[in-house]
Amino acid sequence: MDIYERSLKLHADLRGKYEVRSLVEIKDKDALSVAYTPGVAQPCREIAKDPKMAYTYTRKWNTVAVVSDGSAVLGLGNIGGLAGLPVMEGKAILFREFAGIDSVPIVLSGQDEDDIVKTVEMIAPTFGGINLEDICAPKCFAVEKRLKEKLDIPVFHDDQHGTAIVVTAALFNALKLSGKEMGKAKIVICGAGSAGIAICKLLLESGAKNIIMADRQGLVCEGEEWLTTAQAEIAKRTNLQKLRGTLADAVKGADVFVGVSAPKQLTGEMVKSMAEKSVVFAMANPEPEIYPQEALDAGAFVVGTGRSDFPNQINNVLAFPGVFRGALDVRAKDISEGMKVAAARALAELVGDQLARDYVIPSPFDPRVAPAVAKAVAEQAKKEGLARI
Amino acid sequence: MDIYERSLKLHADLRGKYEVRSLVEIKDKDALSVAYTPGVAQPCREIAKDPKMAYTYTRKWNTVAVVSDGSAVLGLGNIGGLAGLPVMEGKAILFREFAGIDSVPIVLSGQDEDDIVKTVEMIAPTFGGINLEDICAPKCFAVEKRLKEKLDIPVFHDDQHGTAIVVTAALFNALKLSGKEMGKAKIVICGAGSAGIAICKLLLESGAKNIIMADRQGLVCEGEEWLTTAQAEIAKRTNLQKLRGTLADAVKGADVFVGVSAPKQLTGEMVKSMAEKSVVFAMANPEPEIYPQEALDAGAFVVGTGRSDFPNQINNVLAFPGVFRGALDVRAKDISEGMKVAAARALAELVGDQLARDYVIPSPFDPRVAPAVAKAVAEQAKKEGLARI
Repeated sequence: MDIYERSLKLHADLRGKYEVRSLVEIKDKDALSVAYTPGVAQPCREIAKDPKMAYTYTRKWNTVAVVSDGSAVLGLGNIGGLAGLPVMEGKAILFREFAGIDSVPIVLSGQDEDDIVKTVEMIAPTFGGINLEDICAPKCFAVEKRLKEKLDIPVFHDDQHGTAIVVTAALFNALKLSGKEMGKAKIVICGAGSAGIAICKLLLESGAKNIIMADRQGLVCEGEEWLTTAQAEIAKRTNLQKLRGTLADAVKGADVFVGVSAPKQLTGEMVKSMAEKSVVFAMANPEPEIYPQEALDAGAFVVGTGRSDFPNQINNVLAFPGVFRGALDVRAKDISEGMKVAAARALAELVGDQLARDYVIPSPFDPRVAPAVAKAVAEQAKKEGLARI
Repeated sequence: MDIYERSLKLHADLRGKYEVRSLVEIKDKDALSVAYTPGVAQPCREIAKDPKMAYTYTRKWNTVAVVSDGSAVLGLGNIGGLAGLPVMEGKAILFREFAGIDSVPIVLSGQDEDDIVKTVEMIAPTFGGINLEDICAPKCFAVEKRLKEKLDIPVFHDDQHGTAIVVTAALFNALKLSGKEMGKAKIVICGAGSAGIAICKLLLESGAKNIIMADRQGLVCEGEEWLTTAQAEIAKRTNLQKLRGTLADAVKGADVFVGVSAPKQLTGEMVKSMAEKSVVFAMANPEPEIYPQEALDAGAFVVGTGRSDFPNQINNVLAFPGVFRGALDVRAKDISEGMKVAAARALAELVGDQLARDYVIPSPFDPRVAPAVAKAVAEQAKKEGLARI
């Protein structure tokens, strides 16, 4: 059986990948009256007096909702919330398995921006954090921005920021290995959608100064008429030489190529045109912008993809469990850019002395990952005054 | 420590009464690629093609959301969703403990009727059923009615229908014991709020013909100006002699008193004025409309309360786990009045030969309860064409 057949069988056998368990055995009247009525009135009264006691008397402290309208699921596109539920259940169990978080999938029947914002706002008291997932651009920018303003719990669109953190971590190490500096490297990001823009922002936050973004219509450049609002915004901080042309033009002499676009966007010829000791992260899934061997043959120094069957897998699971673990641990109000950079630095540092061309980022199954990311995120939240304990 | 102190300690020790577990161990790349990307794309595609496959490939088939805006929590009143979370977590674990259901508490930040309806509609694809909880009247009527029309999964406001089912079951048995018929009994319901009206409707559905409802302002009677919309509706089917006056007037000669109101509404004198072999269900919590001994001393034949420290406890937990278990088992589209009556009959029948003045309703810890209720509900759903499998 191939991976799809095996997955279908697993899902049919389990009929869902998570379960909700009780932490109290309700075996007699006494148990019922302590865990439920009339005893339960007391924690209710305490929370009514002081809302923050919800973190003491309920599971709010450890819960994250994985919310999706199913408008941009994996490579499947807009399949809707219900059809996206297997992905959201998967995400929820990764929160549990990698960071001990109680996570609940919430898939939505509607895809209107206002409805999504209102719904998440309505259900937010239940949760300690909100992970937005597989919401299409540009809606995802507005949904996240509005929810961050409205809610006092962390809101994190993983498709943007999870990817950005792991790319940034891998790039810290790849540049270290090639003896280059973030502030001087020429970086080309192919794919100016939600992930690409988030990567760009986090790299700028991490010290990058020379980034060019490319999308289907060409290079992102201030003044281009085809730019979306988000692209126009990022154009003010990138491509400062106002280069116009193709991806191939941008890649010439570049130190770094980051692909979050589509298969076969990068050719061996284009890699050859890059600077010495170039870095290629080709993360289109399942088929990358260029296959690793082709990139290496063309002279790339460090190559990474989104796939588990090649070295240097840029995998979100390296970030989101630890990021939320850290945020929950200190009851962070928000997940800031600084906290994301801290997560990336912590991830990069785990590689340590083992740093090599085929090992610039830890394995998702390295048990040190989530605790290290969580610690860094929690400490940064405290530094920025975003922690509440 | 009293029950409240013990409850507070339990809640502080556990920090929440439920946890979300993974049914898949994610220990290596292979597990990740089968349970998550890329394999998970396959169940997504299947559900996109045929939405009902969500019942096969996700946990939708076994999940119930316990949704509350916290506008009428226990005897605490409008404490809001967050402060009501300990109750909703309690409800969720009772679903698990009594009926093996995966249940998630969802507490809301807003209390507007339209917002509640919209929010539940938005999150509904995730769940196999919706249990509305602790929403104040008359909002609860409208919220439930609108959601029943919009959604293709069961919606059940337990404060209304759970109580109604258990009262109806207890009354089937109490009348049997006293040799009376439902269709001939004079029944007085004290408290014309959401629970009282639901009890009234289910008793009418079960054959009762002579019911008088009483509320703070007097007897519910067609034409009274103080009636709410829901009360005006029920007035058309109750108090057909158009009796006006006090609760004491209504109770004279009555066979049955059902109290869902406030402490001390029923006096010994009033019980003495009732018919021979009278039934008194005094369910105000924690202090009943009349204490059992006082009612018995005044001549009541069968007495029940909502409390676990007296015989004949009218407890919702006898109904809601089995009702949802049965509805989920046949993928019922709705929970109909007929399904509720079937649940009540099944509950009543469990008492069997043991029927006695102090045993008209099974114990909540009788392990036969949820399976028997589930079976009856599922069969009735099939009879009514509401089952989908």
